[in-house]
Amino acid sequence: MSLASPFHGLSAFPPTPADIHGRVDTQALCGLLERLCEAGVASIGLLGSTGIYAYLTREERRRAVETAVECVNGRVPILVGVGALRTDHAQDLASDAEAAGADALLLAPVSYAPLTQDEAYEHFLAVTKAAKLPLCIYNNPGTTHFTFSRDLLQRLSAIETIRAVKMPLPADGDLRGELAALREKTDLAIGYSGDWGAGQALLSGADAWYSVIGGLLPRTALALTKAAMAGNGEETHRLDGLFQPLWDTFKAFGSIRVIYMLVEHLSLGRAELPRPLLPLGSADRQRVLDAARPLIAQETGQPHQSLL
Amino acid sequence: MSLASPFHGLSAFPPTPADIHGRVDTQALCGLLERLCEAGVASIGLLGSTGIYAYLTREERRRAVETAVECVNGRVPILVGVGALRTDHAQDLASDAEAAGADALLLAPVSYAPLTQDEAYEHFLAVTKAAKLPLCIYNNPGTTHFTFSRDLLQRLSAIETIRAVKMPLPADGDLRGELAALREKTDLAIGYSGDWGAGQALLSGADAWYSVIGGLLPRTALALTKAAMAGNGEETHRLDGLFQPLWDTFKAFGSIRVIYMLVEHLSLGRAELPRPLLPLGSADRQRVLDAARPLIAQETGQPHQSLL
Repeated sequence: MSLASPFHGLSAFPPTPADIHGRVDTQALCGLLERLCEAGVASIGLLGSTGIYAYLTREERRRAVETAVECVNGRVPILVGVGALRTDHAQDLASDAEAAGADALLLAPVSYAPLTQDEAYEHFLAVTKAAKLPLCIYNNPGTTHFTFSRDLLQRLSAIETIRAVKMPLPADGDLRGELAALREKTDLAIGYSGDWGAGQALLSGADAWYSVIGGLLPRTALALTKAAMAGNGEETHRLDGLFQPLWDTFKAFGSIRVIYMLVEHLSLGRAELPRPLLPLGSADRQRVLDAARPLIAQETGQPHQSLL
Repeated sequence: MSLASPFHGLSAFPPTPADIHGRVDTQALCGLLERLCEAGVASIGLLGSTGIYAYLTREERRRAVETAVECVNGRVPILVGVGALRTDHAQDLASDAEAAGADALLLAPVSYAPLTQDEAYEHFLAVTKAAKLPLCIYNNPGTTHFTFSRDLLQRLSAIETIRAVKMPLPADGDLRGELAALREKTDLAIGYSGDWGAGQALLSGADAWYSVIGGLLPRTALALTKAAMAGNGEETHRLDGLFQPLWDTFKAFGSIRVIYMLVEHLSLGRAELPRPLLPLGSADRQRVLDAARPLIAQETGQPHQSLL
């Protein structure tokens, strides 16, 4: 798999601008995607967790994919999140994404009743039968509460179209050990989410950064990605330090609340959090703005007057 | 609130018979509800977790409630689970349940992005504005991964129509301490789920048992409820002991997989687990049958020939 694959480098996960009823604002979505294409991200992770896939209907998810395919127009591969509680619904979403022209799928084992390892395996297998696109395993225990065993990842990697995994940061911090263990058991491309650990993950040899902030500030995220993938620890740590106050707000408030606030603050469109999620209060908003200010300056190459 | 309220005594949670596509079998549902009415349970918990509410569409959930109201015909109060990821969807479900003639609502803070305490509060408040039925807080961290603080329960109990809470068994086992603390802070009726701890919860003074097995074997569950609520520890422990092997299979396999297998085995209808959930394998099925055999004999007053 070449570095031009959707599973290597910076995969930017944009928010999905929508109104309070979950109706996607296709124009604002296009605007966000344009920024990602112009910055030159390696792939776009449409309808990820930050892209509120879990809160949107099948119809709105189809509208979002069709919009993205049209706007991006082949410039950057598009991964589409097709997670759903029911296997048949996930199959429908995968089939919709394929029909709309997506390049790859991202599938999380969304659950209500906790799933067994075998149930997750059969769920993934069923979705790969519904659409032939390359698939990335969306390993996101913070939202799905499902834990993949390494044996399950190995079994899944034997399914022809399953090509990649998006991992959470390891609890013990041992990225090199985890990467070595996974590479021994699978031939999956291995990327990480958890923006605050991405620089270290890439320095440790990970293939991709599945990035929340990359969906909003792609140039700065790309600079960090390139520095880390080139093994430039000094520049990686400098940029990571610049991001640190924002990572702290991600941890304190949840990245989704921070990102949706910043979309509107950067005048990139109206992006309502799906209720029950609530906008941040004014003190928390101020903390986010203070944390974001130097990053916005870095992103645009100059102080962002509207924000300062 | 009298003992005839839907929030005191045995609240039986039936499974929802449905086909593999999530289409509810209204005739089989009626048959299950008839057994509960005949046994004389205090209330019916329709579309609880075991009732696969999370996996059914709004349309199918409406069909289930309409069917139940018609079959039960006022003999037993019906609580309806109206949980949904989006607040507006939960409001729609609550409004549908009220229009169909339900007696009370059961609301779990279903989440994908983890919710704050304030977000859960506003979610509940919004649902109480959409339907005026008495509401039971469905505190089920095993599926929702949301933890209610006691302060939040206190705030919620001040909302006029919020009358009860369905609690998980306390991790430290201190039922009396928890009941005393909750009664000091709220005037909610307090019931417990977690079938294996229900006898002890009722002996400790809980108001209700929100029971999975009560949805399938109501007479035996009712005998345990009555013994425990009368303070008869000896009979409670005898019946609890009879249930113990089945509780062990609930813990080992998840109660939902055990119950859906038993529905078909008792010839009570066709009840497919919603995929990705899978039926138990043959060794596990045998263990469930062995555990259930003495209970079925107890329930029917004689050995259940078709099973033995």
